[in-house]
Amino acid sequence: MQQMTENQTNTPPTITRKILLTDCADAQGLIAKITSVCFNHKLNIIKNSEFVDNAQGRFFMRTELEGIFNSEQLLQDLRQVLPAKNHMTLVSAGKKRIVVLVTKEAHCLGDLLMKAYYGGLSVEITAVVGNHDALRELTEKFNIPFHLVSHEGLDRIQHEQALLAAVSQYEPDYLVLAKYMRVLTPDFVAQYPNRIINIHHSFLPAFIGAAPYRQAWERGVKIIGATAHFVNNCLDEGPIIKQDVIPVDHSYSALEMARAGRDVEKSVLSKALQLVLNEQVVVYGNKTVVF
Amino acid sequence: MQQMTENQTNTPPTITRKILLTDCADAQGLIAKITSVCFNHKLNIIKNSEFVDNAQGRFFMRTELEGIFNSEQLLQDLRQVLPAKNHMTLVSAGKKRIVVLVTKEAHCLGDLLMKAYYGGLSVEITAVVGNHDALRELTEKFNIPFHLVSHEGLDRIQHEQALLAAVSQYEPDYLVLAKYMRVLTPDFVAQYPNRIINIHHSFLPAFIGAAPYRQAWERGVKIIGATAHFVNNCLDEGPIIKQDVIPVDHSYSALEMARAGRDVEKSVLSKALQLVLNEQVVVYGNKTVVF
Amino acid sequence: MQQMTENQTNTPPTITRKILLTDCADAQGLIAKITSVCFNHKLNIIKNSEFVDNAQGRFFMRTELEGIFNSEQLLQDLRQVLPAKNHMTLVSAGKKRIVVLVTKEAHCLGDLLMKAYYGGLSVEITAVVGNHDALRELTEKFNIPFHLVSHEGLDRIQHEQALLAAVSQYEPDYLVLAKYMRVLTPDFVAQYPNRIINIHHSFLPAFIGAAPYRQAWERGVKIIGATAHFVNNCLDEGPIIKQDVIPVDHSYSALEMARAGRDVEKSVLSKALQLVLNEQVVVYGNKTVVF
Amino acid sequence: MQQMTENQTNTPPTITRKILLTDCADAQGLIAKITSVCFNHKLNIIKNSEFVDNAQGRFFMRTELEGIFNSEQLLQDLRQVLPAKNHMTLVSAGKKRIVVLVTKEAHCLGDLLMKAYYGGLSVEITAVVGNHDALRELTEKFNIPFHLVSHEGLDRIQHEQALLAAVSQYEPDYLVLAKYMRVLTPDFVAQYPNRIINIHHSFLPAFIGAAPYRQAWERGVKIIGATAHFVNNCLDEGPIIKQDVIPVDHSYSALEMARAGRDVEKSVLSKALQLVLNEQVVVYGNKTVVF
Repeated sequence: MQQMTENQTNTPPTITRKILLTDCADAQGLIAKITSVCFNHKLNIIKNSEFVDNAQGRFFMRTELEGIFNSEQLLQDLRQVLPAKNHMTLVSAGKKRIVVLVTKEAHCLGDLLMKAYYGGLSVEITAVVGNHDALRELTEKFNIPFHLVSHEGLDRIQHEQALLAAVSQYEPDYLVLAKYMRVLTPDFVAQYPNRIINIHHSFLPAFIGAAPYRQAWERGVKIIGATAHFVNNCLDEGPIIKQDVIPVDHSYSALEMARAGRDVEKSVLSKALQLVLNEQVVVYGNKTVVF
Repeated sequence: MQQMTENQTNTPPTITRKILLTDCADAQGLIAKITSVCFNHKLNIIKNSEFVDNAQGRFFMRTELEGIFNSEQLLQDLRQVLPAKNHMTLVSAGKKRIVVLVTKEAHCLGDLLMKAYYGGLSVEITAVVGNHDALRELTEKFNIPFHLVSHEGLDRIQHEQALLAAVSQYEPDYLVLAKYMRVLTPDFVAQYPNRIINIHHSFLPAFIGAAPYRQAWERGVKIIGATAHFVNNCLDEGPIIKQDVIPVDHSYSALEMARAGRDVEKSVLSKALQLVLNEQVVVYGNKTVVF
Repeated sequence: MQQMTENQTNTPPTITRKILLTDCADAQGLIAKITSVCFNHKLNIIKNSEFVDNAQGRFFMRTELEGIFNSEQLLQDLRQVLPAKNHMTLVSAGKKRIVVLVTKEAHCLGDLLMKAYYGGLSVEITAVVGNHDALRELTEKFNIPFHLVSHEGLDRIQHEQALLAAVSQYEPDYLVLAKYMRVLTPDFVAQYPNRIINIHHSFLPAFIGAAPYRQAWERGVKIIGATAHFVNNCLDEGPIIKQDVIPVDHSYSALEMARAGRDVEKSVLSKALQLVLNEQVVVYGNKTVVF
Repeated sequence: MQQMTENQTNTPPTITRKILLTDCADAQGLIAKITSVCFNHKLNIIKNSEFVDNAQGRFFMRTELEGIFNSEQLLQDLRQVLPAKNHMTLVSAGKKRIVVLVTKEAHCLGDLLMKAYYGGLSVEITAVVGNHDALRELTEKFNIPFHLVSHEGLDRIQHEQALLAAVSQYEPDYLVLAKYMRVLTPDFVAQYPNRIINIHHSFLPAFIGAAPYRQAWERGVKIIGATAHFVNNCLDEGPIIKQDVIPVDHSYSALEMARAGRDVEKSVLSKALQLVLNEQVVVYGNKTVVF
């Protein structure tokens, strides 16, 4: 059997689930062409979502497929029917590996640890890296390695090199900044393009930068929020994945806003991470399509 | 030109937009087959949304199409590729006609009138029918005919016959019960199957029936809501289209809950109506798919 | 009877409801002292709300009172027990008068007109003033005078003088900017300090200034909002009264965000206005206490 | 010094914070009288909230006090000024002790453990009691004793006696049912009147009883919710403390609703618990006043 030969194995091919993400110039008949190729490969479409950005003439589609995959042939057949300069990725739906970066605050890390523990997030937290030691005890309760990479006595470049060494050994699919309170340089970010997810404790683009709850308190806002986004070269300006808000009132001090904001921060971060893990997020320019 | 012959007219065919709703037993390749037929008809897919109910093995798709339609041929070609016992509808995206039924409360009617007036809802309100005269003045401000069909001195059958006479002359696509406070009989409902939209002033299925705000107050709930649904034979049990809620607290009397609820009632009703007008709602069994 | 003499009338004193707003330096025993004075005046406290801003050492209290008022004596007695440099206002709970300023968009004005009409807001809309004529027809449906004060051919000073002339004849308690799309000068604002309420179509302080929905679209936010605030000398920077948000996603164009935002704009504006009319809002510095 | 004698100690009296909850028949001057007594005791009012239930003529007040307390004398002085049949409690603002009851689901327990660990809830979790052993490992990670009290082979009375034995040794202020999936008998509940907090996984009173997510799915609702309430003798009918909801759509299976509901369940439970711990909740009849 040809399929078995290709798989270089004697075990029979098994039914798996993969996600096809397509991103190309818009053209007529794209849905028909792509889904017909999948049909010819005897793949069942579990769920199909498409979006056309009319302003840019760009077509996006996420196709959840089930069946026996001949992945190389599938991508080759798809390339035949798509316009040139297309992006296609075909990813397995299984667990992804992450490294979590932290400073001192426990709530976001705690939520990720707990959800990974009981199956609320299908993710493997391979390690936690902190620039302080405060969250070592919490991390190790869950038998996950904790690395202290202090910035004390190091310049930014040296610190990031140490950070990169600690992180890269785990070959993570994504880095999650769970209230990691230092700015990463473009050089570091370039190692993980669109693969670093940050939680910012404001409803961006309001209150960019430091102490957003204090800024919110000073402005007298009636709602505070949190924003999960991919990190790019500009502070707090990467593509937004998820945002949420909670009401506050005049009686909240800046500290009480920060306390109240914890629940929305952790919830937004873990929802954004779930969307990314599910391959529901496509980055284009400085925005995301979230299927 | 063949196309012109088919249209039985000498005016050149124009580009229009239509919505194709498909509902059939699930099978492999349905998206490919349907979109390929559309592509062969040179129709452009503006937006495509699908859903498979795995529990029932049922496939639903909404396809927004643009081009020059040969509608009969399109439906015939689609029927060739679909499983038997399919439902297909192909509807123009234009304005629909509604008749609004009311009793005494102005807020839902007011919102519909205002939105129809300034283009917030693409709908033609052809008439308002009330079992009281209270909302005549408001309706006539907008140059819309108001019919008083009082239930005084009539039995239920007689009243509904009078109601039907008043309504049916306008050949509405939908009836909207904008706080119409009388129960309709199955015979009346059968005249407009899945075409009567009601707003119920609670978060159904909590507080079915009369005085839901009083029930909510007695139970001491911390959230109240509103539910827009299609009317079927059982009171407050038809397929739900849209729901929303607002927070309340111990300081609200039943009357204050009712006042606070008005904004959510009118908002839920007009959002549900917009979804229906956009052909985004498919009823199956006692549920809706809302694309 | 002494009370009648004071009222300079022969009609018997009647029971009314007034709201006492107190704002002074914080000190021990303020609640006891103020409520004891009220009790000595035989006034019943319907509702009492207090707030201490610990950062500034400032005490705020709103006391809803019912009874027969000897207002001058009451304020004099209260001044005896309060720290120096206190602010006290004692306002009747009745209907307030507003003038609404508009440009072309109908939804906020429409909501105010409708609510004033059916009692959803206890307010008298004495006039609507527009710098375009677009909303005359809508306004006049409700038998409310509409004034066109075009800015064409006038410089900013001249236009505001004309505006002030049109507005001031109605002696309004508040001006409501219901999508009035011109910036007011400090001179104009100074005529109505903390008495001009604006609706800004973003979640301030995000997207200050022009075209906030376009800014939001360009940034790729997942939530949009609206902010009602008092107008002061800096554009979009006055004390915030009320904010609310709605979710959006990648599929919204800037225009669709603007459409979706209308409902939240009108809802936030009318809720903010209701709070102000109820004397629930105290301004201090650039913030509000909303009781 | 008299104060020191009363305290039976030579240490000087220290400034503490206590909360006075008053609940009595409504009467004129109550706020003045109560706050004057506090003022005479040289106690500073940090925050004062009152509510009158006009339907029942009942007055409720929560007064957060700071100073040196002569508690017995304070309560005696207050009794002098209050109507007969009043309820007054004066409680220290410190940490309370809870026991958590669980079955198999980890998310609510996990959130409580995490928040107790990092200070997100000011509570001492003295023990976790499960009718299954599934959550022992998680509990013990946080060095908290776990008791398995299996219902296997026991009748309901026997099981509750074993439960009571396990729980009562910790002398908890409150029991928290964190997805404890068995119904408690009136005899058990009577041991902890208004001191057992349950999280029900629906927006009560919709979907009382078993499998609320399945009920919600069958009804086709567009919103699901969670309700935290005190437990009384009727299943799911105790006084509601807190509710919240999240949107769902046709694409959610009952299982996916249950998964999505976890975040709102844990958030509602921990917010309700915080309110109770802060002495912000007063039960009367089958309702709560939440200050």
